[in-house]
Amino acid sequence: MGRTSDAREKIISAAQSLIELRGYSALGVAEICKTAGVPKGSFYYFFESKEALALAVLDEHWAGQRREWTRVLHGDADPLARLRQLFEETEASQRAGQQSCGTVSGCLFGNLTLELSNQTEAIRLRLQEIFDAQVDMVESVVAEARERGDVTVADTREAARSVVAQLEGQVLFAKLYNNTSRLSALWANCLALLGVRTPQEAAAEV
Amino acid sequence: MGRTSDAREKIISAAQSLIELRGYSALGVAEICKTAGVPKGSFYYFFESKEALALAVLDEHWAGQRREWTRVLHGDADPLARLRQLFEETEASQRAGQQSCGTVSGCLFGNLTLELSNQTEAIRLRLQEIFDAQVDMVESVVAEARERGDVTVADTREAARSVVAQLEGQVLFAKLYNNTSRLSALWANCLALLGVRTPQEAAAEV
Repeated sequence: MGRTSDAREKIISAAQSLIELRGYSALGVAEICKTAGVPKGSFYYFFESKEALALAVLDEHWAGQRREWTRVLHGDADPLARLRQLFEETEASQRAGQQSCGTVSGCLFGNLTLELSNQTEAIRLRLQEIFDAQVDMVESVVAEARERGDVTVADTREAARSVVAQLEGQVLFAKLYNNTSRLSALWANCLALLGVRTPQEAAAEV
Repeated sequence: MGRTSDAREKIISAAQSLIELRGYSALGVAEICKTAGVPKGSFYYFFESKEALALAVLDEHWAGQRREWTRVLHGDADPLARLRQLFEETEASQRAGQQSCGTVSGCLFGNLTLELSNQTEAIRLRLQEIFDAQVDMVESVVAEARERGDVTVADTREAARSVVAQLEGQVLFAKLYNNTSRLSALWANCLALLGVRTPQEAAAEV
């Protein structure tokens, strides 16, 4: 092993799994390297600090998730159908995580926001950028839906933020109760938050 | 000092402040005792473990918050006005926290859910009980509102859960952006989630 070209990726991938299981603060560099199967010297060759690793984990995870969100939200379906697909894929991905590791691991960004955002400004800023980008992506779909007359919201930014907040809140409950069925409410709630119809009308339609 | 009658309370109070600042995993018993101003021996006299302390912190914090929620939600106002007051008081309390310690500390229960719920079953179960109790309290107000014809939701449990999820999601953003004005969306979103009116109708009304 050693400073092979894939040691950096191994460290990031091990750190991401360990953070999902046990959070960031509880981890030590030695444990991360042991899980990654790389010598401890490699760590400081690639990362200045544990914080630098956390930033790399966030970037890596967001790069993957942004690809998924882009695929879904820039798709050919009607704008609201794309939002629905986003929630369905979120539920499916949390369910797959639960099947592979026994518990719903939730959203890495939400987890690290609540664990770390008040401790390091660099991590807070990176997480803000990521959530800003998520809200941007949802807002642009909401704006498209409004142009077509599918939704009536006055403030598309505020509406997109509320949709992402509802997503984070329900993912928090899915993690707490280790139950992904909590996420099935996302679609009806999204319609309500976008003023399309009331939750009752949405439920009657299913 | 020593095993005085208030040492237990001092330890709980120090632990709560430290957890709000830095999370649970990053804390050691020595630091908690130093902040509390009690000798380390006292800790193990009162608490079997750090986990036992975390449970005591949750119980103490919930006892205080339940009193506030009960005062507001069992008040004399119309059911929906009581929910509005709950959000306004949540915003005011997060703002007061921000003024006293410089940053929005968020919701202790949400913070510990994302940091710890996958690590200790005892803490997961206690947090489930607390959120179940919050949803119960909101649900009973939603049911009252429905009896009066003020809201139309079919499933009061699901609606209450969505209202609490939205609260947790927006408090997460308030913490991340260190900005309590995010919480001003709660009332309009609650009306939308309860099917009372669309966010646009609610905004036009303010």
